[in-house]
Amino acid sequence: MMSVDMQRIQTYLSEHAGEAQELLERLCRQPSISAQNIGIAEMANLVETLLQESGFSTQKLVAQGSAPAVFGEIRGRSSFTLLLYNHYDVQPPEPLELWESPPFEPTVRDGKLYARGVADNKAEIATRLTAIRALLALYGELPITIRWLIEGEEEIGSVNFDAIAEKYTHLLQADGALWEGANFGDNGRPELMLGAKGLLYVQLDADGLGVDAHSGSAPILPSAAWKLVQALATLRSPSGKVLIPGFYDAVKEPTEQQIAALAAQDDTEEQYKQAYHFEEFVDGLSGLELRKRQAFAPTCNIAGLLSGYTGEGTKTVLPARAMAKLDFRLVPDQDPEDILAKLKAHLVTQGYGDIRITAFDYCRADMTPIEDPFVQRIQAIAEAFAGKPAEITPLGGGTLPLLESLRKRVGLPGLSAPGNAAYWGSAAHSPNENIRLADLERAVQFNCYLFASLGEA
Amino acid sequence: MMSVDMQRIQTYLSEHAGEAQELLERLCRQPSISAQNIGIAEMANLVETLLQESGFSTQKLVAQGSAPAVFGEIRGRSSFTLLLYNHYDVQPPEPLELWESPPFEPTVRDGKLYARGVADNKAEIATRLTAIRALLALYGELPITIRWLIEGEEEIGSVNFDAIAEKYTHLLQADGALWEGANFGDNGRPELMLGAKGLLYVQLDADGLGVDAHSGSAPILPSAAWKLVQALATLRSPSGKVLIPGFYDAVKEPTEQQIAALAAQDDTEEQYKQAYHFEEFVDGLSGLELRKRQAFAPTCNIAGLLSGYTGEGTKTVLPARAMAKLDFRLVPDQDPEDILAKLKAHLVTQGYGDIRITAFDYCRADMTPIEDPFVQRIQAIAEAFAGKPAEITPLGGGTLPLLESLRKRVGLPGLSAPGNAAYWGSAAHSPNENIRLADLERAVQFNCYLFASLGEA
Repeated sequence: MMSVDMQRIQTYLSEHAGEAQELLERLCRQPSISAQNIGIAEMANLVETLLQESGFSTQKLVAQGSAPAVFGEIRGRSSFTLLLYNHYDVQPPEPLELWESPPFEPTVRDGKLYARGVADNKAEIATRLTAIRALLALYGELPITIRWLIEGEEEIGSVNFDAIAEKYTHLLQADGALWEGANFGDNGRPELMLGAKGLLYVQLDADGLGVDAHSGSAPILPSAAWKLVQALATLRSPSGKVLIPGFYDAVKEPTEQQIAALAAQDDTEEQYKQAYHFEEFVDGLSGLELRKRQAFAPTCNIAGLLSGYTGEGTKTVLPARAMAKLDFRLVPDQDPEDILAKLKAHLVTQGYGDIRITAFDYCRADMTPIEDPFVQRIQAIAEAFAGKPAEITPLGGGTLPLLESLRKRVGLPGLSAPGNAAYWGSAAHSPNENIRLADLERAVQFNCYLFASLGEA
Repeated sequence: MMSVDMQRIQTYLSEHAGEAQELLERLCRQPSISAQNIGIAEMANLVETLLQESGFSTQKLVAQGSAPAVFGEIRGRSSFTLLLYNHYDVQPPEPLELWESPPFEPTVRDGKLYARGVADNKAEIATRLTAIRALLALYGELPITIRWLIEGEEEIGSVNFDAIAEKYTHLLQADGALWEGANFGDNGRPELMLGAKGLLYVQLDADGLGVDAHSGSAPILPSAAWKLVQALATLRSPSGKVLIPGFYDAVKEPTEQQIAALAAQDDTEEQYKQAYHFEEFVDGLSGLELRKRQAFAPTCNIAGLLSGYTGEGTKTVLPARAMAKLDFRLVPDQDPEDILAKLKAHLVTQGYGDIRITAFDYCRADMTPIEDPFVQRIQAIAEAFAGKPAEITPLGGGTLPLLESLRKRVGLPGLSAPGNAAYWGSAAHSPNENIRLADLERAVQFNCYLFASLGEA
């Protein structure tokens, strides 16, 4: 179906090897921690400069006091318009003591590049930009029109993305969208991800006393820490089932087509176990049942816990306060505001109505159907590039808050294709985040092939 | 019964007003945080120098690599020998951001002196030493022999006190012991405390993964934080009852004499509520039932909790590890090693056998009976000084690990008498620890009267 001259592209890329890595290290050297508001303006400037230098007409998109999103456009030869999405912000690097090299000093060890954000998702910015530069150098123009939006608030739940998408809807029109990064599996199969879970992120604060007390008064003073622990224990069974009444009301069974896609996935259980050093999946699951649980189970996760004395040695204190951070990952049709209301009602019913709830993020799940023609076209291109059948994930485990807004404001089909260079051991959101350098070169090749193929009839 | 010339003592003290405060500020300016091993050697030197300057023959007692305990002796006129006990170490000052003035810069505000350790228990070192200096200045000798042991590891559970007491038993012989600090109530009644609870301090560490994970994998990866929360929730009912099987086996009912002592205590419930800013005691208790619970209920307290991301904003992480620090306050006949074994067995039974338990402190409760002649003599002296009936606490809420060792190695009757200057609002172990300066002067007077009275027939 396509007449892309990959030979010529390969030759060019070989002659310019190392360009993507150089670009990536430059991106990683600039901290851009949205949760702590560190380096965001500097990073937006760096990204805009890189796009301009590569031939994009650019502008910064700001709405409701958001961090600036960088928007760039290059008009191409064919009528096809592709919207690319990435984010330039990263997760906080803590706990720092677990990093083997400083998180913002990109470091190569054993063929891997280590830095905060290298996998999530600065590598994809680097590989897409390197591919675009290569095509422009080779052909003097792009095969398709590319519109590229790179936001700075993804890791804090894309809190202003909807306002940006509403204000700049005209810039985001396209034939289809490619979000941030899927990858090639170790088996060489291209991964396609057709949706992402929703998110509700809350902080629970329990107050017991105005000030910490000597724990000798523990027989008679209220304990914030015990209150929080006992309230948390009512939220979830030891096997992971969420016990908030009504939590599963909107959850639908997966379709046969979705189950078939999961069944066709390769087994990555051992890779998971190696990456995270554990022995058994939840409930001893494996195979298709494990994949169904991962794909379609909504969760209540404890992301943080803090109370009292946490240093070395002992301190016999009855802490005044206790705090938990929870993230709920939601599946299609679960409404985060409804889940929040049910959480509040449940805590009241259980006698914990005085625990304060602060909600940070609300996001609905979103999914493009397997049958969508844009999905099928990307699938065909990816399979032609790889010479292997794609692995399709109907609903990814993470959350891409932009999906809900793109659906509502622009209405595009979209998915993740393997333009990133992350892998199963990338430790996104964790210390020692890394990519394999070999994956970086292949991702550049794939992006070249993808953009070129979309320009063919 | 006594012919102590309080008039003469008062006059002397008035002429030397401020001496105790000056001494106390000097003691508080020197950090001495045993849990963090900060300033311990310097503090031991300071205490020994102060004792030497006041006429004590001194030595440092070290056993098993302990922090040096300072021992001093002055032989007195009568045959009565009194053993005094204090500690020069303090609790860690964290959380620092809640202090209104730096914890090791003693600061006077509104007639109160603020500093870490000022109430627990550097004030008592200052008031005892000031009283001894006054009696020596007035009479050229002490009315009784005073042996004084000031250790440096009380706030970490007096981990080497038993080794010190065993090695130096000959130095600790006496007719009775006065431990660290009871006080006068706001009603002017002298408080006597005849015992202290035991302690078992443990840290629980739950491991789920080798490294933190993205919480998008929460449906299938084991969660250390949930495991810890759910394990903790099996330890204690929401109303405070400890659910470890056999935990209460050794607990005895209080005697009628003990209940009578509790019934004769003044009501301090409102002071408690003001000091700690809360509305209701546990289970809505008040009056005698509240006092019985405080005096005789063993507890399981959460002193610290830590897992995952605890900074500002959000981080969607599935934490690799989770930690809790627990202190169990025990009553007479509960054996901390037995309780530890029962805790371990309970966690195994509940399916949490893989949670690691590190035990820091073991200490049995100890109590001198109300009927003991030394108790009755101190009670008579304190009531004569105050002109009011004493308030007797048969078993204090805190823990004095030395009591078990003194009982075992020396066999002395002992109690706490009001020589300290703390009060209900002192916030021991908490930020903004403080004493009222007016209480300091009275404590010096009382210590003079006490030592002088014990020298009378």
